[in-house]
Order: sequence, then structure tokens, then C-alpha cells
Amino acid sequence: MDDDIVIVGGGQSKFGKRKGLGIRELAFEAVSDLMNDFNMGIEDIDASVIGIAGEEFSGQGAPAAVVVDEIGMVGKPTIRVESACATGSAGIKTAYGWIKAGFYDTVMVVGVEKMTSVSSARATELMARAGDVRWESPYGCSFPGYYAIMASAHMKEYGTTKEMLSSVGVKAHHYGSLNPKAHIQKEVSLEEAVNSIPIAYPLNLYDCSLISDGAAAVVLTKASLAKKYTDSPVRIKGVGSGSDTMEIAHRKSLTSLSGAKEAARRAYKMAGVTAKDIDVAEVHDCFTIAEIIATEDLGFFEPGQGGPAALDGQTYIGGKIPINVDGGLKSKGHPLGATGVSQANEIRNQLLGKSYNRQVEGAKIGLSHNVGQSGQFVNVMIYDRV
Amino acid sequence: MDDDIVIVGGGQSKFGKRKGLGIRELAFEAVSDLMNDFNMGIEDIDASVIGIAGEEFSGQGAPAAVVVDEIGMVGKPTIRVESACATGSAGIKTAYGWIKAGFYDTVMVVGVEKMTSVSSARATELMARAGDVRWESPYGCSFPGYYAIMASAHMKEYGTTKEMLSSVGVKAHHYGSLNPKAHIQKEVSLEEAVNSIPIAYPLNLYDCSLISDGAAAVVLTKASLAKKYTDSPVRIKGVGSGSDTMEIAHRKSLTSLSGAKEAARRAYKMAGVTAKDIDVAEVHDCFTIAEIIATEDLGFFEPGQGGPAALDGQTYIGGKIPINVDGGLKSKGHPLGATGVSQANEIRNQLLGKSYNRQVEGAKIGLSHNVGQSGQFVNVMIYDRV
Repeated sequence: MDDDIVIVGGGQSKFGKRKGLGIRELAFEAVSDLMNDFNMGIEDIDASVIGIAGEEFSGQGAPAAVVVDEIGMVGKPTIRVESACATGSAGIKTAYGWIKAGFYDTVMVVGVEKMTSVSSARATELMARAGDVRWESPYGCSFPGYYAIMASAHMKEYGTTKEMLSSVGVKAHHYGSLNPKAHIQKEVSLEEAVNSIPIAYPLNLYDCSLISDGAAAVVLTKASLAKKYTDSPVRIKGVGSGSDTMEIAHRKSLTSLSGAKEAARRAYKMAGVTAKDIDVAEVHDCFTIAEIIATEDLGFFEPGQGGPAALDGQTYIGGKIPINVDGGLKSKGHPLGATGVSQANEIRNQLLGKSYNRQVEGAKIGLSHNVGQSGQFVNVMIYDRV
Repeated sequence: MDDDIVIVGGGQSKFGKRKGLGIRELAFEAVSDLMNDFNMGIEDIDASVIGIAGEEFSGQGAPAAVVVDEIGMVGKPTIRVESACATGSAGIKTAYGWIKAGFYDTVMVVGVEKMTSVSSARATELMARAGDVRWESPYGCSFPGYYAIMASAHMKEYGTTKEMLSSVGVKAHHYGSLNPKAHIQKEVSLEEAVNSIPIAYPLNLYDCSLISDGAAAVVLTKASLAKKYTDSPVRIKGVGSGSDTMEIAHRKSLTSLSGAKEAARRAYKMAGVTAKDIDVAEVHDCFTIAEIIATEDLGFFEPGQGGPAALDGQTYIGGKIPINVDGGLKSKGHPLGATGVSQANEIRNQLLGKSYNRQVEGAKIGLSHNVGQSGQFVNVMIYDRV
């Protein structure tokens, strides 16, 4: 329908430790990449939504305006959105609304984060502040801790094993090794992953996503205007969001994210599809256990079956549902604000058949699942070709 | 029209130095105030948009979720938005889009800031980071400095005087003295204001807005659903936004904000009204010069006439256009994320005839003008009774 919202351009910077580059330069790199397959110029875009999770990493307050300056959109309306690690998808949801409201025809969403300007310990501390700074982070709980608790609960309830967790990391590194924009391009064996250094039991080094610099960008417009920009628009067919209690101690379950299940329910309903219809998915694998839980919350596998399915290779290309075949947060990297936008960009590339040696052949419907904090912000989106 | 977006509830905490209260408690106070004139309960609201400008003030990263927990909206989708001092109106714009997109029927916007947890010097430094941290703030430019430059330019170009600037502060304190929720309730004479201590020439103490704690909340829904919530919905009839260069050194003019003019143009066009139709306005008087420039940018007075008009009392109730008759940022206070939401709430009260001893009699159309940074984020909104 003419009323549909479509993605008409996408780009991404190299993710990694990008020494000497700040949020300006990273954003510029992503937008330059986008412009390579874009029929029009930056002057044809009406407004921007900038996703940046933490201002302390860059030290720049109200950082949207510096990004807008650098990408050539001076004078055009902008906003910063933030939903912790779900910031990127929150940006897409905001831009979608602005177009539907009639404010703008065409909006660029740029997600960007500069994280390696501080030490890893400081980065972990800054991220821990997204936990409750009254009742959680001061007592030592950081994000590996939250997910270690979930992993332990999942192991106890379903018999999930460390090998199952590690197999998720092995897959991530396999596909990351094929992705030139991934932070780490290196295969890892299951044995290496299982025996890697412990971070927070039962999570090892290869269970934890990366602290990365990077940016990603997409341009959204109305389907009726898409032809100006591209011959191959990708539609955002469903959007669903969910949330959860601030403190994980208040939750009914630690083996599932209720906000993710709700977000998925809403996105499937809006798109008129079910989990069975999804050909390729990007899920928020901030930790390996998060991917296993995501595949269950999204309905790809029954509760408790995500671990065995991962170990069995069912989430590789050729398996039941290919997941994170760009390397995911684990190997592609996780520059907080960029992640959700990068997921949308990867699904777009998959649906357009442009994912090269990581292509899911014939992929027609894709899904992205982006989680902030430990489940307080979840956005699930479903995409297809128009 | 059924398609219109309306405000069906509003509330505000007391603004001020709210010792012992954090973002949670301030937000709760605003939402409690809102619930007093609201026909339904918090359970009838589908989602929230949380406006918080600076996470360093509270130390809470990704702070939307802690606010949502406290106001009884656990499990419902949320997002944080940030546009420096225009954060509150950015929240309203985002919620407007989400409803228009069909994501939700009813969305609460909560703007909140806890600023007095740090010293005034530290607050000024944190706010200065919203200037360019590469080329501006490290060289000593903080926000009083930006606006002092604009004031000097305005004085040079138009002959604006210190008395004219001070008269804006005098008016703010007059109306603030009548507003029980204002940070400072104290009349100030023109003589006192002109002779108050210098902050950044030509701006004195009574030219500068306050560092305040506070929160404000509004609930938006579709006009077709408004009856469930209230007998007197207020419509958001126009929304316009603008922006400007990051560095003020790059601007063509220092006596006007080009983003504000553009935002006004768009808002008037969408609403189908002109400056002459506005009965009451809330403008972003972070400094007295900012109010003078705002009244010119919005078309209430010709360029250069804002100062004389202010000194002449034309912006009091009974004058040509009553401006900031709640005390404005100068006397009501300026808790960054709350300000834009409080402006909308004040206009709503004015249009409903609920502003008591500060009521603009017969006000039918109102306007709010909310500016972030030194003009990089501007949102202008126009409201009427449905």
C-alpha cells in the first residue's frame, strides 16, 4: 500500500576499535556507505533521528546535532532517541511515526556509538549504569551478571549446557569471519569457546558481545515515494515493542523476556505472519544465552529447545532458521546505538540478495529483535519486499 | 477530525530544589497531579515516552525504565528521547507520531530532570557539554556565553537595551509569584534586575533561567477516543521543527534562530493560523534575550521590536500577546526534560480556563516554543480546543 513505510537505503561503517574516529566520523562513514546505493542525495532527506545510547562515552551532550552537522543535514530537524542497547530500533520506530504523522516524507535514522574511547572496565561500568543505579549496579551487578543469572536459570530449568551456549558464539564467529564490516573476523572452535576465560559463570569470553565503535544508517520513506530513491524498497511490515520491570529481581521468569514475547506477538500480528514465515532473523545476542532465549521468545523453538537447536546447527544457513548470519553482536560487534539500525540494514541486504557469501537464498521475510537493558526495551520488526 | 491528536490530561510537579527527590519521585508527583483530573487510570495508557536531557545529573543510564517502573507502567513500551532543552516537546512529537502510526491509542509523555543533585558549577559544566565539546565548551563557552553573544549582537543591531532584557525577567518573576508550582515565587523590580550581579555581559542574574528539579506529564490520544478520558480535550493543531548549525560561529545571524523561524513557519502552516491568531504563548526563555528573539522569530513582533515591546508590557496579560504567564523558565524553573511538557500543560490549562489568577481570558489558540542547545533543536506547537 502507498501508506506503507519502506527502507530505501542502508549503510554501515566498519565496526571495531576505530582509533581516532569519533561519533561524527563514524556516522559519516555509515552515511557515505548508504549513499553508494542511493539514487538521491542527502538534500532529499527531510529530517533525521539519531540513536546514541550513552553520552558519557563520547563526552558530547545532546549529541544529535554534532552528528547532523557532519552528515550534511544542517538545519533539518533532528532528535536523539535512547533505549539502551535497543536505541537503534527505537530510532526506526520514531522515524516511522514521524512519517506516518505527516511531519516528513523521508527520514534518515543514524545509530552510532563510540565506546573504545574509554577502557573496557570503564565501558562495563558505564553500561552497568543502565541497570538500576539504586538497587543493582552499586552492589556489583553489571550486564554480564544479569545474563549469567538468566543463563544459570535456563540451565537449571531446561538442562541447557555450556556447549549449547558456546555453540552460539562459534556460529557468530563463523559468520563474522565472512563479514568484512565485522569487528572480529576469526573462526573459533567449540572447544576454544567452551574453555575460554570465565567472565561471569556460566558465561565465558566467547559468550559475551564486543565493545565496539561503529555506526549504521537507514532511510525510511512512504512506499508511494520509494521509486525516487530505489528500485528495491524493503517494507517494514510489522513493529512490536515490549518492556519489563526495572529490577530483574521483580520478574516472574528469568528464562524468558516477557517484553520480547509481547513485542514479537505485536509485530507478528501487525505483519500478519507467524514465526514459521520468517526466513532470516537478526536477534540481540549481547550474550549467547540472550540468543537462545530470543529464539524461544520469538517462537522459532519451544521453550528450552533453543539450546539444543543451536548446538544442532539449526540457526545456521540451511538450518531451520538462520540467525545472525552477519556475526551478530558477538562477532560483528555491538556499538550500542548502531546495533538496531545495523540489524535492519542486514535484513534489508538479505531480502535484496546482497549478503554475498552469507546470503540466505530466497529470503522473503526477515525479522529483527533488539533488546535494551535486560529486557526493559524490546523492539521486534518484520520486513519484506514490496 | 477523528484523526486529530489531542491532549486529554496534564500534570506537573512543583519545580524547585526538591531535596531528597530523584527522577522517579518527581515523575510520580507529575503523574499523580495528572491523575487528579483524569477520568481513567494509568492502566488505560498504552505506552510512554520519557524525556530526560542529561543522564549525568541523576547518574542513571537508560533512565526511562526506572521512571516507567515508578509511575505504574511496568511492562508497557517506552523510549527515552533527548533534544537538550527541547527534550519535552521532542517527547510530545514522538508520542504524536506513535499514535498516528497506529502503534498505540494513548501515550503518556513524561519529562523529568533532577539537576540540583550536583553543584551549580557542575550543572553549568554538564549543560555546556551540549555545546560542541570539540570546538566550543573546552574553550570556556557555556550557555550563558552563547546567549550573551546573541544579546550583544541584538543590542548592536537593534539598539536593544539592558532595561529591555531585564523587563523580561521582571515579568517572569511577576507571573512566577502567582504560580504555586514555580521554583521562585518572588517579585523583582526592574531596578533590582538591571543591577543584579553580572553572569555573562550583558546578561545579569535576573536574565538567566534556573537550575531546577521537576517533572511534567501529558497524555495524548486520538480525538475519537478522547471522551473516555476527558470532557475537554485540547488539540495539537500544528507541529513544526527546525535546527541550526552545531557551532554558533557558523551561523548567518546571531539575532535570530533560523531553526525557530522554520519551526514556526511549519507549525503555522500545519495549523492554518498565523501569529496574529495566537492568544497565549509559552516561549523558551532560557535567557531574557531568548524570549525577545523568540517573540520576533514567532512573528509576534518585527525583528528588533521584541525588546521595546517587552519593556512596554506588551507580553503581559492584557498586552498584545501574553507570554510565559506561568513564570517561564526564568521563574517557574527549567528542569531540562520537563520544560517542554510543562509548556504544553500550561497552554492546555490556559485553553481550558484553568490558570486561575494568571488566566488569559478567552484564550482559544495557544503556542509553545521549545529550544534545545542554542537553536539546534526547536519544536513549535499550536493548540486549540476541539
